[in-house]
Amino acid sequence: MSGTLYGIGLGPGDPELMTLKAHRLITAAQVIAYPAPDTGPSFARSIAAEFIPQNVREIPIVVPMRVDRFPAQQIYDKAALEIAQVLEGGTDVVVLCEGDPFFYGSFMYLFERLSGRFVCEVVPGVTSLTACAAQLQRPLTSRTDVLTVIPGPLSDEDIRCRIEDAQAVAIMKVGRHLPRLKALLEELGLLEQAGYVERASLPEQKVSRLADLDCETAPYFSMILIYKGDEAWTLPPSFSS
Amino acid sequence: MSGTLYGIGLGPGDPELMTLKAHRLITAAQVIAYPAPDTGPSFARSIAAEFIPQNVREIPIVVPMRVDRFPAQQIYDKAALEIAQVLEGGTDVVVLCEGDPFFYGSFMYLFERLSGRFVCEVVPGVTSLTACAAQLQRPLTSRTDVLTVIPGPLSDEDIRCRIEDAQAVAIMKVGRHLPRLKALLEELGLLEQAGYVERASLPEQKVSRLADLDCETAPYFSMILIYKGDEAWTLPPSFSS
Repeated sequence: MSGTLYGIGLGPGDPELMTLKAHRLITAAQVIAYPAPDTGPSFARSIAAEFIPQNVREIPIVVPMRVDRFPAQQIYDKAALEIAQVLEGGTDVVVLCEGDPFFYGSFMYLFERLSGRFVCEVVPGVTSLTACAAQLQRPLTSRTDVLTVIPGPLSDEDIRCRIEDAQAVAIMKVGRHLPRLKALLEELGLLEQAGYVERASLPEQKVSRLADLDCETAPYFSMILIYKGDEAWTLPPSFSS
Repeated sequence: MSGTLYGIGLGPGDPELMTLKAHRLITAAQVIAYPAPDTGPSFARSIAAEFIPQNVREIPIVVPMRVDRFPAQQIYDKAALEIAQVLEGGTDVVVLCEGDPFFYGSFMYLFERLSGRFVCEVVPGVTSLTACAAQLQRPLTSRTDVLTVIPGPLSDEDIRCRIEDAQAVAIMKVGRHLPRLKALLEELGLLEQAGYVERASLPEQKVSRLADLDCETAPYFSMILIYKGDEAWTLPPSFSS
């Protein structure tokens, strides 16, 4: 019997926002794998750190942090090979994933290489989408709203037409696109309805009206949420300080 | 000191998919509130049932199950009044919410009535969106995909134009709209790329290619996921039986 490949969503960053199932599988793991940048520690591993058993075998998947962040295929080929050997030996492998494995996650690169040969189970996690809405204290969607999720790196033209068709809009991966996106939303008359969250649920999180944000750049883990119907929106008092 | 209002996402249905934080707050609760239909037990309460302490005070919010499911304002007015009295007395109230409180959730009706007067914390949960993708064993979004989430009750025309602009599409609350939506997707040439999930993560869940689905109606908690780039998509073998 081969082992099972688990892709486990850890949620947005606060370890308490992982699921009971993620917690159970991590605390019982013999082998874990996780993405890691070549410039520092793994964010996914840091979320799970307090629950990782001693003497676990760790398989870091070190991906160079280039601007476009598209993975080098060879890195995933090599990681899949190492993980396959563990699975063939009958041991499960738990892959730690920020947020949800199938929501803009790099887990898909392992999944597409291994799911045909091994039993694979994906454990969904809390996405940054609803974690950011919770921090902004504003519903993401209700009733018959259409929600559109747009990656920040898309062109102004691509973003503009998608915003026009939705009631609720999330722009993910804001990063270095912040000044451009802010200008675009001002042009569309939506700046006052836009909220901004970076590193949601972590101690260093930042929550702001987009209009009040004074920085010129944002980290990769940042999001703009727009609720078009909500013209008089302001942050609740607890965040206004 | 007034109590805090907690809106707690419980995830899609499997109790193990609630977060550690939801678990902690529920097991320590003195007062819980939850939506309930007038026709049977509360789904939200059933997810949390095994963790609800004895002798907890329960405030069911009984909402008539009319076709459009839009809440009667008076019911939420009355519930908010009862909850406000508890909060004013210095006791926290934990509101149990299916999925995520701010993702098409009825929690917003309490939130809009109470968040101005009381401290409110929203604990995000796993949404049906990623829970369904996990069950279909197919990534929801990757790289620079645009995702659009569309409520099934919208008109064909509204749905058609939104599908055209996205790479990944989720149609929520399929219910009685199933035959119409299936016909629309066939017309758009997308039936073969569509997956169907009802009651994700529960023992009675159903997972299928939409093209293979032979029923004429679906429950309220059902979803169609379309990944347009994925032309040769089939369900993995474990679900094909």
